[in-house]
Amino acid sequence: MSDKRAIGVFDSGMGGLTVARALRERLPHEDIVYLGDTARLPYGTKSPATVTAYALQATRALMKHDVKMVVIACNTASSVALEPLAHDLAPLQVVGVVEPGARAGLAATKTGRIGVLATESTVRGGAYLRAIRKYNPDTRIVQQACALFVALAEEGWTDGEIAHAAAARYLSPLFQTPSEAPDTLILGCTHFPVLAPAIAHVLGDTVTLVDSAATTAAAVAEALTKEQMTNDERHPGQNHFMATDGTERFARLGGLFFGQPIAPEDVELVDLQAGLSTTVQASP
Amino acid sequence: MSDKRAIGVFDSGMGGLTVARALRERLPHEDIVYLGDTARLPYGTKSPATVTAYALQATRALMKHDVKMVVIACNTASSVALEPLAHDLAPLQVVGVVEPGARAGLAATKTGRIGVLATESTVRGGAYLRAIRKYNPDTRIVQQACALFVALAEEGWTDGEIAHAAAARYLSPLFQTPSEAPDTLILGCTHFPVLAPAIAHVLGDTVTLVDSAATTAAAVAEALTKEQMTNDERHPGQNHFMATDGTERFARLGGLFFGQPIAPEDVELVDLQAGLSTTVQASP
Repeated sequence: MSDKRAIGVFDSGMGGLTVARALRERLPHEDIVYLGDTARLPYGTKSPATVTAYALQATRALMKHDVKMVVIACNTASSVALEPLAHDLAPLQVVGVVEPGARAGLAATKTGRIGVLATESTVRGGAYLRAIRKYNPDTRIVQQACALFVALAEEGWTDGEIAHAAAARYLSPLFQTPSEAPDTLILGCTHFPVLAPAIAHVLGDTVTLVDSAATTAAAVAEALTKEQMTNDERHPGQNHFMATDGTERFARLGGLFFGQPIAPEDVELVDLQAGLSTTVQASP
Repeated sequence: MSDKRAIGVFDSGMGGLTVARALRERLPHEDIVYLGDTARLPYGTKSPATVTAYALQATRALMKHDVKMVVIACNTASSVALEPLAHDLAPLQVVGVVEPGARAGLAATKTGRIGVLATESTVRGGAYLRAIRKYNPDTRIVQQACALFVALAEEGWTDGEIAHAAAARYLSPLFQTPSEAPDTLILGCTHFPVLAPAIAHVLGDTVTLVDSAATTAAAVAEALTKEQMTNDERHPGQNHFMATDGTERFARLGGLFFGQPIAPEDVELVDLQAGLSTTVQASP
């Protein structure tokens, strides 16, 4: 019999819903419990110590829902907090987005030159550098922090003049010298897949974009293969959402990332600071 | 004898340093203690209940430095938390940025049509609407949330193509019908003054920009007039900075808003959640 417990997914906010969406598509019969730490987002500009503390609180809240696995659908938290989380949650399996993204980037590159687009924290932490070099130390890697992409994604300005100009400003320096230009770009932030059209507009189809949402979903599916569901068990998976602030905003904007509407009443407000996962009074 | 205690200033992050800068220029002999809640920024997308709770913790940390007044250099916190803060800190005087900004806007407009540019929370809270209408109920007010301005300011992309395009996208709808166009725009977020050149590039010199930093400094100076310093007391004012995360980043980017360099060693790391204002281990 398969393990019917849900897959726990967490992110600093709504971007991780791109990972939840990929999981939903790849594993339609699994239940998903998603937690967005919207009261404290973004993680991408915060210190490793703070991000780790927040991530530990978030995963403990997921544990209260008796999940069978935790997916860290946040590049920043995956970069700096995967080891402490795995230690804290053991023997529960913890999957981050960095390792699958790094492996997918390596599989895609033909020239051995990979670019990593991420938040400031992820770039500074260097987790993608280490993950890629672990498999192939000869890979040429160039990193670029793209802070404005997060704001563009949250504003819904994912295509058009401003997105194109921002993409050009961030990416042009990476492609100035053709012999050093990457042929593969890892989208190392869960907000960035919605900006893929703008990036493609600037770079054309000469560069492969690797989306860590799809690659992480594949890694989760792989980890779960030993628990094949029987036909009797194949019911449509349920989604449960939790946010630490602004459930209405989470539902309104989250639907864009999740790829299907989220009703405000389906988003539970939780407080990670004052008693873990205690439901608090809804904000006005 | 004058009250030699410092003026306490707080903001969700570094934007409030534009207010501290205006205070420093207007009141060169006053000491300033500044707290940026960088671990939990931005406030502008969070619920009123959460912003109020954070603001209360922040001001209590300032109180530990025995300040004589608290300036809420954050439009979002001023909009939603001024009353609970004033109640909590009484009899200490609390000054927000909304009231001075509203009054300055009313003083500047000739047509009685004012635009308010702010964060999503400030716009939704409607504090500027109420503050302006309290003095003149006939004022025509149009509000515009400009979330990307915050990211542009923090990225340092305050002028040039992208800033101009973002300004045009936010502002053009407000000026489509000349007979309804405002003649005065209140910059209702402490990040926005650095984008004034981009806004002026789009609108020309037909619109007056009201910067709440300068107007708030004037309001603070007015409140302090009764305590004239003697010549003997006129020493250069000291600055003390506190941040809840990323002191190095605070110093590096904060200097842009403060208008003078901030050394990383001059920024104290404080923890507002686990024991108020307790100094915690510096992040790596």
